[in-house]
Formats: sequence, structure tokens, C-alpha cells
Amino acid sequence: MDTNSLKGFYDRYPDDFSDLRYMIDTVENVVQRFGFKEINTPALERRELYELKSGEEILEQTYSFTDKNNRKVTLTPEQTPTRARLIQNRRDLKSPVKWFDTSKRWRYESVQKGRDREFFQTDVDIFGSDSIEAEAEIIACAGMIFKEFGVEDRVKLLLNDRRILDSILSSRDITNVQEVMRVVDKKEKLSDEEYSSELKECGLKNESVDFVKKVTELEGDLDQKLRDLKEISPDDENVNRAIERMERLAEQLECYGVKSMCRFDASVVRGLDYYTGLVFEAFDRDGKLRSLFGGGRYDELVGEFGGQTVPAVGFGFGYSTTRILLEQEDALPSDDSTDVFVASVSNEIQDVSISISQQLRNIGLKTETKLTDRSLGGQLSYVDDIGSDFTIIVGERDLKNGVVTIRDMRSGDETKVNRGEIVGYLSDKI
Amino acid sequence: MDTNSLKGFYDRYPDDFSDLRYMIDTVENVVQRFGFKEINTPALERRELYELKSGEEILEQTYSFTDKNNRKVTLTPEQTPTRARLIQNRRDLKSPVKWFDTSKRWRYESVQKGRDREFFQTDVDIFGSDSIEAEAEIIACAGMIFKEFGVEDRVKLLLNDRRILDSILSSRDITNVQEVMRVVDKKEKLSDEEYSSELKECGLKNESVDFVKKVTELEGDLDQKLRDLKEISPDDENVNRAIERMERLAEQLECYGVKSMCRFDASVVRGLDYYTGLVFEAFDRDGKLRSLFGGGRYDELVGEFGGQTVPAVGFGFGYSTTRILLEQEDALPSDDSTDVFVASVSNEIQDVSISISQQLRNIGLKTETKLTDRSLGGQLSYVDDIGSDFTIIVGERDLKNGVVTIRDMRSGDETKVNRGEIVGYLSDKI
Repeated sequence: MDTNSLKGFYDRYPDDFSDLRYMIDTVENVVQRFGFKEINTPALERRELYELKSGEEILEQTYSFTDKNNRKVTLTPEQTPTRARLIQNRRDLKSPVKWFDTSKRWRYESVQKGRDREFFQTDVDIFGSDSIEAEAEIIACAGMIFKEFGVEDRVKLLLNDRRILDSILSSRDITNVQEVMRVVDKKEKLSDEEYSSELKECGLKNESVDFVKKVTELEGDLDQKLRDLKEISPDDENVNRAIERMERLAEQLECYGVKSMCRFDASVVRGLDYYTGLVFEAFDRDGKLRSLFGGGRYDELVGEFGGQTVPAVGFGFGYSTTRILLEQEDALPSDDSTDVFVASVSNEIQDVSISISQQLRNIGLKTETKLTDRSLGGQLSYVDDIGSDFTIIVGERDLKNGVVTIRDMRSGDETKVNRGEIVGYLSDKI
Repeated sequence: MDTNSLKGFYDRYPDDFSDLRYMIDTVENVVQRFGFKEINTPALERRELYELKSGEEILEQTYSFTDKNNRKVTLTPEQTPTRARLIQNRRDLKSPVKWFDTSKRWRYESVQKGRDREFFQTDVDIFGSDSIEAEAEIIACAGMIFKEFGVEDRVKLLLNDRRILDSILSSRDITNVQEVMRVVDKKEKLSDEEYSSELKECGLKNESVDFVKKVTELEGDLDQKLRDLKEISPDDENVNRAIERMERLAEQLECYGVKSMCRFDASVVRGLDYYTGLVFEAFDRDGKLRSLFGGGRYDELVGEFGGQTVPAVGFGFGYSTTRILLEQEDALPSDDSTDVFVASVSNEIQDVSISISQQLRNIGLKTETKLTDRSLGGQLSYVDDIGSDFTIIVGERDLKNGVVTIRDMRSGDETKVNRGEIVGYLSDKI
């Protein structure tokens, strides 16, 4: 009989999950400060929802089955199709609609470090605005998350805009831009020869191959690279419009205080077919880890789920790689310990300990008291395990004098405090 | 092509989900104050995990299928078997182990009000303590949750202890106690005649049927009913021990300040086979709604998942019925609105608005700014929709004088504030 957890699924004990909880809370707190509202959607959907638009690779990797009523259903591998439905079903919503949600996704992939079959993701989207302002706000959210984690100088946000490459390639009579983009997206995984030969397979002439390679190698300071791009097709109106848009974006990122984290990278086009403009991807600055997460603008997708065309920009924040980064940088907080343990010298006075513990909970303190039949020594040993900040020792002799002993567990100092003054004493200290 | 959500699954928009979020946060905040730590476990498990112990009814109602590697798997209908595995796999954990988790459960049931196919549940358990103190703490958690909701006087916690009925029935030579209990558990759904006849089918003589009926009708004030019970089998040592245990429990509940919410009810035995001692169930005081939630002591279950016998007491907090109660009592908070909207009189000064908005987010305020090309009037209309507390109006003429206009949206009052003093002004007000 095998009752172990499945491969790629994890039993997360408190010492493990507390890191994830800290990260999720941080991400959600940041996006809430930008006015994003929380939604919640089904973990299980009709398979048709994903057949409509999700890539073949994603569909292959789903947990799909037939339910008791013979419906083909799928554990959600991504939330975007569901969000598209929510938007289409409520045309009364005022634009812009700003939503976030943290929930699990499931993909039947080969398991490796940083890639599990069940994982948390926070999706953050602005629907109904095609503005630069919306794009800047999304990048600002991403940047602010890493500021809150305290690792802003360890992270780079690589930006690109598909419209820049699209228009530059089109200005040179390269018409199968999508096909070329798919090769560009694989660039990092290809040798220089492979890259050239795959570009040739798109039907590009040698000259065009060299041109695409030159353009997609552009990477570096945002302002500088935008200036470099301007020199490539200086007279093409579409190219100039696309570049000016990104210049304006850069100005706003400066206002948000996140521009120093941003770089331009023409090779960032993102695997998914649906991005239509801005694309970005976050990496650790040393480039040693997998992508932290990414996002971009996808103005066509929502319309494919109903009659209404709705522009959208957002990102999906995964936690695995960022967790590795925070561990490396020692940026994860230590466990959130109990504030107070109320110990009883004898069983006879346990009721007093309970009453005191409940008074402290009522003012919001995390308070524990003895639940097993333990001597004072046993209780203090349990306190060592849970790591409480203060221990109140309730003893009969002290109680006759109307006091208890409060021990500061960091300094070891002990103080006698009147029973009526315990709450005030500790609320001052904690 | 059907891409709608499945029956019994819900698309929760922010105005809907905010109620659930408030409730989940409240429950989690209360149990954290008792020192419970958060765990997280898989949504998908091997079906064998549930075959071991879950009732036939639960197994029938699962979403089960065969994965790509031919494993029989099940979307988790309850978390207790998983928790038993976690406990068995980590014998180094110090007792008591106090865990909570909020996550979704899935059951393929017929859908009705308050019963969905996908639902949230918060499981709260103490493992490793067979003490009265642990039981009292679990009941105290339950009571404090409803205090925090502000509806403690609208809720009753019905307590029973299987050991009391077991010992009383045994003292009268009724040996098939489990079978009788199963009938008692159905009591509320049976007419008086049906109840009698089902008890007779357990092999009880008429005299014993009358006795069981009399005992299981005991319901009311905790202290009074415990006194009544004492008179039934005054000389039976097991009966007295079971009753004294509950008297001690009542004393501790008094210390926790939740005793006034508690009543004794001998008919509460809970459907699941696995409870071994204390059982409790929360109802609205008028008894008009379904059970709010319930729990109890289950000292045998964990041992069935491995060699280690581990006593346990806990509850599973479901949200559907309590949400109906809070709606009825108007006890749900209004939506959490945006603190500040920063409006721009013209596009030229949008960068100033962005800078101000980000300063406010940096001190923790929920701040929005214009993301679509809207006139000032359009922006103020959006402010009405999102319901922000303050609006900052950034205009060119004001900026020349180094000020902005801040409007208090509740009073309508407007104040000119120096640009350098905006953060201070609003952090005082909010």
C-alpha cells in the first residue's frame, strides 16, 4: 500500500512553508498597494477551455480526465483562459480591471529542481487598458516585489517590446516575423551555428540572418539600447513609434523608482504565442538561475474567449526560483515564533495560566500554554523548541503575593509582575 | 464549445471573494494566536491514501482518475489522511504538534445551497496530546473565531463526549455501542417512531430503547446536564470518569471565556467513525441553518497510517454556512477600498502623479493612478467606482505653486498641500 505523496508534489511542514508564506504575503501586499483586487477561480475546468488557446505543450502536460458525468476536465495548468472567461462574462466591470490571485497550478512535467508538478503562482493582470501607464505599473509591481524582498540589486528585469522587433524586421521585408521570433526565443539554448541555421530555415537570406542576429544581440542599458535601435531604421515610422513608446515607458519606470533594475534585451520574446507588445522576464543578476518569472502585454487573447476585445498586461509570479535566490542571499526571515508561553509550576493552577494566556491572545499576542502533563522543566524545554520571546511562570507562591514571573527569553532577565499588569507589561515589550 | 465553469465550481469576483478572504483571515489569525503553524499539502493524492480509512460515502464522492503513469489518484476530499502521513513521517516533531491549513477540497456531491463541489476548508489540529487542555484549546479556538466575527451570541457550540455515552450504555449491558451510535447520529433526521424502530433493529429490548432515547435527548446547560448524567449510573466508575473529564473541560472553557457559548447535547456524535472522545458541532442559535462546522478527538486514526499511535483533536472549518450566518447578521465588513487615487488634470503631468502615487505605496497606502487616457471627470468617476478615501488632484497651475489639491471623499473637503508634505498629511489622516 503506497500512501506517499506523488512525485512532484510536496508535504510542506511549517519550517518549509513559512518561507513560501512570507513570499506570497509579500507579493500580495505589494500588488494590493497598487489597488489590485483578489479573485478566486476553479482548480478544475472543462478541458475545452484550454483546447481553445493554450499551447500544445501545455495541453500535453495537463492532468486531464473524465468526470462522473462524462465531462472532459483538466486541473488548471494556467489561469489566463479562466480570467478571459471572467472578463467576458461581466461586461459591466469598469476599466481598468486589476486582479490578482495566488493559487496552485498543476502540470505533468518531468520533475527537476525548481520545476514541480504542483506549484503556487500569483497572477497579476490589468485588463481594459492599452496604455503605457498600465505597462509601467506592471513592471513597477515586479520591481517593488524585489525591493520588498530586499534583493533589488540582485535582480534584473529584462524588457523588450515585440512591436520593436516586429517593425524592424518588417522594415527589412522580413515577413514571417512570428516564425523568426520562435527561433529568437530559443536563442539562449542554441549554439551560434544552430541559431544561424534555424534562421535560414525560416527562409531568411544570409544578409537577413546577420541582421536578425545583430538586432537580437542588443542587450544592455535601456536608454542606450533604445538609442542604438533608433539608428537601425531611422526613417521607418512604425519602428520609431515602437521605440518612442518604450522611451516613454522608461521615463515612467524612473518615476516608479525601478528603472535601475531594468535593462533592454532584444532576445526576450517569451515562449508563449500570445504576447503582442511589451514582454519582460526577471533574472538573478548573475544569470546563474532559471528565469524568476515573466509577463507582458497580450491584447488578443481575451477576445478569443468571447465577442469583446480587451487589452491586457500582466505577469505570473512563480515562487521556486525566487525562493532559491532569497535563500542564497539569506533574505528569508527566520521563523515567526510564539510571543509568550505561559508555564504552570503545578497542575492545580493551570486555570490561572489559561486565563492569562487568553487575555494575551485577546490583545493579539501569539500565546501558548501547557497542553500535555509536563513538569516546569519539560515546559521550558518545549519553550526552547518553539522559541517564544517571553515565558510567564505561574507558581502558587507567587500567586499568593499576587504576582507572576516573566522571563525575557533573549536576555534571560526575570521580573515579578502584578497579575493585573501582565497585559500592559507585555504589550509594551512586544 | 463549452468553456463555462463546472457545476458546483465558482468564478469568484472581488466583491464576492472579499467576504471569504475576510473569513479565512479571521480564522487563521485566531488559530495563529494559539500558536498553530501553517502547513501545506498536495491537492492530489494516491487513491490508496483514502481507501485506507475514509468512509465509503467520501470515496464514492471523490474526483478520482488514473494519471499518465497509471497511478490511481484522487483530488483531496479531506486532509486528515494526509496529515496522518505527515505526522508518521516525522517522528522527531516535538509534541504537541499544532497545525492549520486553509485549502480547497473537492467532492462530487449533488450541488445545493451551502454544498459545493469545490470548497475551502481550514483544518486545525493538535497532535500528540490526549489531555483535556488540548480539547479545551480546540473549543476555545472555535469560540474565539465567532467572537472575532462579532456573532458569539448567535452561535452555540454543542458538546458531547463519546466516552460518556459509551460508558453509560455499557453500564446497562448494551454491547453493540457503535451500531447504536450510528442510529443516534441520524436522530435529527428520524421521526420518533423511526428512531425507536431503528434502535430496536440494533437488538435493543424495549426497556433499553427507552433508556437510549432518554439519555440521547439530554440537551441544554453544560453544568446542569452533566449533573443529570451523573444520576443515571451513579456507581459506575467509567461513567463517572467520563463525566468528570467533561466537568474539568467546562472549567477550562470558563477560563477561556467561551463557556457561555457551549451546551451539552448527547445526540451530537458526528457521522464519521473515527471520533473517540470529545465531539462538538457549531450551529446558529436559532437552529435554522445547517451545521456551521464540527470536530472532536480522534486518537486512533493517525496510528492506522503507520506504527506510531498519536492522539489528536481538531476541527475542520468550512465557510459556506457561516457565511450565510454572517450575511444574515450583517457582520461582513464592507469592501476594502483603495486609500488614495492620484488624478492628473492633464497628460503632461502624469509623471508627477506616478511619483506621488509611488511615495504613498512606499508607506503602505493602497494607491491608484490613471492607467487609461481619461479626462479629470473620467478619473473622478472611476474614483467613485473604486471608492477611494482620498483623491489627490495634480494640476499644472497648482504645481507651479508647489502644491496639490487633496480631496477627502467622505466629507468633500479640499485642501491645498505642499508637494513635500503629501506623505505626512495622508499618513496622519489614514
